[in-house]
Amino acid sequence: MNIQEIIAAKRDGLKHTREELNWLAKAAASGEAADYQLSAWLMAAYLHPLDAEETAWLTLAMADSGERLDLTGLPKPWVDKHSTGGVGDKTSIVLLPLLAACGLTVVKMSGRGLGITGGTVDKLSSVPGFRMDLSPEELKAQAKRIGLAITGQTPNLAPADKVLYALRDATATVGSVPLIVSSIMSKKIAGGAETLVLDVKSGSGAFMKTHDEAKVLAIALQNTAKRAGLNVRLAITDMSQPLGRTVGNALEVAEAAAVLTGNEVSRFQELCVDLCSLTLFAAGTVPDLESGRTKGLDALASGAALAKAEAWFEAQGADPSVIVRPDKLPSAPIRKRISAEQAGWIEKVDAESVGRAVVALGGGRERKDDVIDPAVGIEVHVEVGSRVESGEPLLTIHASSEGAAAQAEATVRAGLGISNSEVKRFNPILEFVN
Amino acid sequence: MNIQEIIAAKRDGLKHTREELNWLAKAAASGEAADYQLSAWLMAAYLHPLDAEETAWLTLAMADSGERLDLTGLPKPWVDKHSTGGVGDKTSIVLLPLLAACGLTVVKMSGRGLGITGGTVDKLSSVPGFRMDLSPEELKAQAKRIGLAITGQTPNLAPADKVLYALRDATATVGSVPLIVSSIMSKKIAGGAETLVLDVKSGSGAFMKTHDEAKVLAIALQNTAKRAGLNVRLAITDMSQPLGRTVGNALEVAEAAAVLTGNEVSRFQELCVDLCSLTLFAAGTVPDLESGRTKGLDALASGAALAKAEAWFEAQGADPSVIVRPDKLPSAPIRKRISAEQAGWIEKVDAESVGRAVVALGGGRERKDDVIDPAVGIEVHVEVGSRVESGEPLLTIHASSEGAAAQAEATVRAGLGISNSEVKRFNPILEFVN
Repeated sequence: MNIQEIIAAKRDGLKHTREELNWLAKAAASGEAADYQLSAWLMAAYLHPLDAEETAWLTLAMADSGERLDLTGLPKPWVDKHSTGGVGDKTSIVLLPLLAACGLTVVKMSGRGLGITGGTVDKLSSVPGFRMDLSPEELKAQAKRIGLAITGQTPNLAPADKVLYALRDATATVGSVPLIVSSIMSKKIAGGAETLVLDVKSGSGAFMKTHDEAKVLAIALQNTAKRAGLNVRLAITDMSQPLGRTVGNALEVAEAAAVLTGNEVSRFQELCVDLCSLTLFAAGTVPDLESGRTKGLDALASGAALAKAEAWFEAQGADPSVIVRPDKLPSAPIRKRISAEQAGWIEKVDAESVGRAVVALGGGRERKDDVIDPAVGIEVHVEVGSRVESGEPLLTIHASSEGAAAQAEATVRAGLGISNSEVKRFNPILEFVN
Repeated sequence: MNIQEIIAAKRDGLKHTREELNWLAKAAASGEAADYQLSAWLMAAYLHPLDAEETAWLTLAMADSGERLDLTGLPKPWVDKHSTGGVGDKTSIVLLPLLAACGLTVVKMSGRGLGITGGTVDKLSSVPGFRMDLSPEELKAQAKRIGLAITGQTPNLAPADKVLYALRDATATVGSVPLIVSSIMSKKIAGGAETLVLDVKSGSGAFMKTHDEAKVLAIALQNTAKRAGLNVRLAITDMSQPLGRTVGNALEVAEAAAVLTGNEVSRFQELCVDLCSLTLFAAGTVPDLESGRTKGLDALASGAALAKAEAWFEAQGADPSVIVRPDKLPSAPIRKRISAEQAGWIEKVDAESVGRAVVALGGGRERKDDVIDPAVGIEVHVEVGSRVESGEPLLTIHASSEGAAAQAEATVRAGLGISNSEVKRFNPILEFVN
């Protein structure tokens, strides 16, 4: 077998054999296939998309291109969650301790953000001391002790995906559903969990701009998960407006902390409880979603989730007191309030505009090696359906300079809409896919 | 402008602007676009082929990605010829001195062979001392003095093509007509000639396996040449059987030398005279093809072509006496005769089989860095339409070992066919495309 033959087969629209995809993943991980050959294959696979069987084969081949994390010895059920990424999506920071407080074992690998969708690694890295470089052994030991652990991507897990993912970004081949699916699922399979909850984002702030597109991705993820023998549940959730009331790394940690203290009731908190419930139900520890919601809300109200979060922060090297004292997190020198120019109902807070503004403020990466400013970001005081009067605050920009704040204002104002007639609020969960 | 946008445009089947293709060629030459990005673009361009206008734009952009050879000061007309490559194609070795003997100025850059199609660089390199590394200044000075000069590809001429050509070979994107055309024509334009004769090969021993495919390529080459302002003539010529009576580097030089001495009348000699005539006619120095043939045959019979060839070999550092004393060329220790197992008419001497056998003998390259044995090869004593009796010699294999000769025999025997009924000979020129 050789790489030219594999490229030529996909170029000509032929279906790959399982052996070809095993060979490809190994050759990508080992360097036997050169980057310029893999990217020719990626473009061929973009234009002649892999079918469901090929997608599953590639996924398993990439999962097996390095080591798999073996969770043997940890209490079951072993769960993991994944979001396809959105603006203001800090769900993992709440969900991980919440699930651990409900008795599940959660081991998660997380990525850095690129573009408007932030990464959990970057968010937690805004907490001084928080280590995102746990080794597989450290991950397991910590999860055994306190029920949860998180780390950045480790080089030995799904190395073939690491190579292909980096190339896709540079070669305009990101937007292929089978390639997205195999990238996500190979890492999840290598991560060792048995139950997986997938949060597929839909809207301007997500990769999938419409509900229909998100559904296609959700079903492809589900197919591959099933073929790989994973217990999976999926939700399609809204990303037309930012998730929650903050976008920006330290700001989002503070918002997640507020939910964990049990003091916040919000659209974001609601999504966390719903995803907690879905995970508990998927893992078989509650009989239905309603019982799952009750259990999640109880863990927040009782302080169990907060205690778990504090233990987690401490275990990973961070000062746990930032959870109740978010003023200890980095903060930006400039705050600029954006107010309503008319009264009415909010009909649009465009997630993509807010996301772009935060990247421009320095809170996200345009290129892989950009350095992030953890303090900058945007507070969003309204959501679609909010009633505002003229002059009321809509957003607050946290910036490192007046110039940057003014630029951000122009970007976000273009994404705001106020209507004279009433606009309905709506639930962040658009659909459960089962 | 950036490379991701250019890749994405072609991925989505959009037509490139001239500015995009100029940018792409410059970025390929400078390294600003990485190899893995160029190969993604190549696959997109393979699957969404460039149209005639894009092909011409890319060709000119690649021709201008480095220096152009300026032939100012040399006697006109300035001519060049190019063959798309085949098995046993040593035409340039005859045609260059023949054209110079007829009063034209011929400056040619030539490539090394890869796969079954040999390269003129490799053939002439089998002559001890023959320099294929003339600088642009040396090329011009020699052409001014004796009317002809040849060199291997020089790094500053069409460097964008050099990069893309190497990637195409490694990424299964060779077989795209617009990419083939832009590669050939960019080098020819950078080479400075005003009149160009293109020999488009058709058959199992060529890249284009059928006359129809060859015609598509010929018309695309013609379109691009016209858009670039070149005076071009094309012939589609047969490559279903090897060209001439030898395949292999030193063997082919000896055969070309025999034609130059005026002593050989053959299918190959006929093609040389026809292409000479076409070039003279294209350059406007004869009124019709028949006068061109007469002029070419006269130059062979009078010894003018031979004298020019001797001056040429000497100018490029080689011993000119090898032309009349081909026994001075490298020769192989083993000669194995393949005889007819039945009487009849030859209906097939498959060019691809003979080409593959010669590569396996060590006379060609499977990979770019393979070293060539100049002495090995195959003599072909028959052609389609020859009458043979049982036991008569069909081929003679020149090998470095008995084992290699036996392997070559198996390969070539599979490509031989003898019929009980008469088979017609046919002219190597299948069609003039004008």
